[in-house]
Amino acid sequence: MAVFSIHGDIIWSERFGSFKTAENSYLTVVDGKIDSVSAEKPACEVIDARGSLVIPGLSDLHLHAPQYAFCGLYMDEELLDWLNNHTFPEEGKYGNMEYADRAYSKFVRDLLKGPDTRVSVFATIHRESSLMLMRKLEEVGFSGYVGKVNMDRNSPPYLTEKTEASLSETERFIEDAEVFREIRPIVTPRFIPSCTDELMKGLAAIAEKYSLPLQSHLDENLSEIEWVRELCPSSISYADAYDRFGMLSSKSIMAHCVYLDDDEIALMAKRGAFVAHAPSSNANLSSGIAPVRKYLDAGLNVGLASDVSGGSSLSMFRIIQDAIAVSKLLWRLKEGSGKPLTFAEAFYLATKGGGSFFGKTGSFEPGYDADIVILSDEENASVLRPELSVEERLEYYVYADSERPVKAKYIKGRKVFQEA
Amino acid sequence: MAVFSIHGDIIWSERFGSFKTAENSYLTVVDGKIDSVSAEKPACEVIDARGSLVIPGLSDLHLHAPQYAFCGLYMDEELLDWLNNHTFPEEGKYGNMEYADRAYSKFVRDLLKGPDTRVSVFATIHRESSLMLMRKLEEVGFSGYVGKVNMDRNSPPYLTEKTEASLSETERFIEDAEVFREIRPIVTPRFIPSCTDELMKGLAAIAEKYSLPLQSHLDENLSEIEWVRELCPSSISYADAYDRFGMLSSKSIMAHCVYLDDDEIALMAKRGAFVAHAPSSNANLSSGIAPVRKYLDAGLNVGLASDVSGGSSLSMFRIIQDAIAVSKLLWRLKEGSGKPLTFAEAFYLATKGGGSFFGKTGSFEPGYDADIVILSDEENASVLRPELSVEERLEYYVYADSERPVKAKYIKGRKVFQEA
Repeated sequence: MAVFSIHGDIIWSERFGSFKTAENSYLTVVDGKIDSVSAEKPACEVIDARGSLVIPGLSDLHLHAPQYAFCGLYMDEELLDWLNNHTFPEEGKYGNMEYADRAYSKFVRDLLKGPDTRVSVFATIHRESSLMLMRKLEEVGFSGYVGKVNMDRNSPPYLTEKTEASLSETERFIEDAEVFREIRPIVTPRFIPSCTDELMKGLAAIAEKYSLPLQSHLDENLSEIEWVRELCPSSISYADAYDRFGMLSSKSIMAHCVYLDDDEIALMAKRGAFVAHAPSSNANLSSGIAPVRKYLDAGLNVGLASDVSGGSSLSMFRIIQDAIAVSKLLWRLKEGSGKPLTFAEAFYLATKGGGSFFGKTGSFEPGYDADIVILSDEENASVLRPELSVEERLEYYVYADSERPVKAKYIKGRKVFQEA
Repeated sequence: MAVFSIHGDIIWSERFGSFKTAENSYLTVVDGKIDSVSAEKPACEVIDARGSLVIPGLSDLHLHAPQYAFCGLYMDEELLDWLNNHTFPEEGKYGNMEYADRAYSKFVRDLLKGPDTRVSVFATIHRESSLMLMRKLEEVGFSGYVGKVNMDRNSPPYLTEKTEASLSETERFIEDAEVFREIRPIVTPRFIPSCTDELMKGLAAIAEKYSLPLQSHLDENLSEIEWVRELCPSSISYADAYDRFGMLSSKSIMAHCVYLDDDEIALMAKRGAFVAHAPSSNANLSSGIAPVRKYLDAGLNVGLASDVSGGSSLSMFRIIQDAIAVSKLLWRLKEGSGKPLTFAEAFYLATKGGGSFFGKTGSFEPGYDADIVILSDEENASVLRPELSVEERLEYYVYADSERPVKAKYIKGRKVFQEA
């Protein structure tokens, strides 16, 4: 039985909108699971993180690993132009294993330094480099999902698969991925415009056959929604177009959902599908602001997402900032959008909210996976405001604009990162 | 004659919306002024910044130095509550010189590391610590303005001055500040709600007597605007309330301007007053989004501002990101707001746009002050995208979320910062 404890200022969120804290306490881990939070020193190895914040790992529900190579570039364009002019040409490069090796190494290295412990990643259509990305993530100790993307229409020739080949490559990807323990495959139709009905039917069957989760894009941008309306005249909505293939369930992530109508909200709620809310990306690509308060009130599952490289930062701390900021702007600019998100609410979404897609992660309740991040905030706590509460220290840290690094990170009780 | 040249990849903006670039070229400085940009190596000392970006210094038109101590905290509150619950109690501490010394030292140290070369700063009502802040900024080589704040009504007792004392302390502040060369005083009525008519008249006379610029707040928040309407029943608008005291001119900065009506826009344009656009702060405090495109189309002078600590980051790179992002959201959410800002446009506002308040700064045209920032972007330029243009490298750098430090900084030709 592997047991250890971390001694520090512990803070987590079990319920939407509130924190639990345990200052100068011990977070004990047994066999990769949270065992207890206690003020009493346990009889096991104790890791000294006194004066540091100890928080649950964050989950990024939606990001594109191949786009990281141009993260923070070409931000003057809207979604469909941005895809055609920059994203697709970049994704086309991942048939080249030498390029993919360099690009994915940088992606994994930078992701490791941040506060994320779980991720659900889009790769590209290329089976081999998608497997390489899985291997790289697995090797450093990450947990989560990687999808080989499927596209068989309305895409540039170098990213358009034959339907049959797309399906067979996906099955081969899934079978080859059986060697990985912590990074699992996820079925990934890019979005309705890129996938024929035949491909969608085949992918739904594959998800069923292998009991796999599924991820895609939904209601991101008004032009995209209009396009889907033309492509799917018999569907009553964009969400319905996925639902007809059986693609909405508690095992699916729908990225963006900026413009869900009432029927779509009801459908998403009924199916238990997850909304990956990507506030930075939705601003950068001029998509809009998802009315997250409305979705939460309707009982939808919501997590946060960087959507790199629509989002220009890998840091989920930045995404928390942006989720709060855009919710305030929506509240101010659009009547009936509901109250802004508080810091505690956004932190919940980034931890337990999105984490619940991956199982029991993102909280320090007993039996949860021991996904733990240690943050040094000594400078803050000592210099000017020694009276800050643990909650306030966390807010200060999250708003510190990525300036302060993660000190150490554990996934399922295994240390995956230690600050140099 | 002091002459030197910086050899690197030079980029600046002379006209709103476009860049000039000179790759692998020489930026020559003579007696603290820009002399030339040339591909030919000049016959003087050459500073080797090959492979680095060389850009003009950025101007922050509005920030509150005493609020930096709680930067990134208490973001769940709106303006008036946030002022009463957090800002005023913190500002009350600056009568204590020992506390002010620690807090202002941290502020100046962090500001120095960033890309700003010019700042227009609010201190507090306290003359002595305001002078201390000026000294600290002057000592490290900054250029710009610091205002002792004036408040004689609607403020907590510990921040409410007697009108006469407020005026006499201001004159003494201005006279004591004559020892400083580069950091100059600026007349700083906090905002209409904090200042009686008598105080405003006196401050306008002081600005006139000493030929000083002036800074204040205008149209930040809907509750504040409503309050001003009650306080000034005879004024036709909030801007008009300032104008009646002669406080709008090309030497005044009005922070925020989220809600200028058409009359106010015309008045601000006529007077040539500067709008300090603070997008991050206006989101954080749920104020709204200033329609900057409309203001620019009407010929207003516009610069960017962090408004620390309504803004949660000192970095003007982050403010550029946010100015672009909120302009996209406004375009999407509110009809008639005009096109979003492009990266080139926002960069202009952060450099020459706001810089023009301070004189000739923020550009590399001959005769401009040699305010220069060197940025290392080796990692970007070499690893994945060796083909990036200088403009693209700059965009990548600005969006890199403060992760990458400034390498060196010059103000009026004097080196004020060098990365350790």
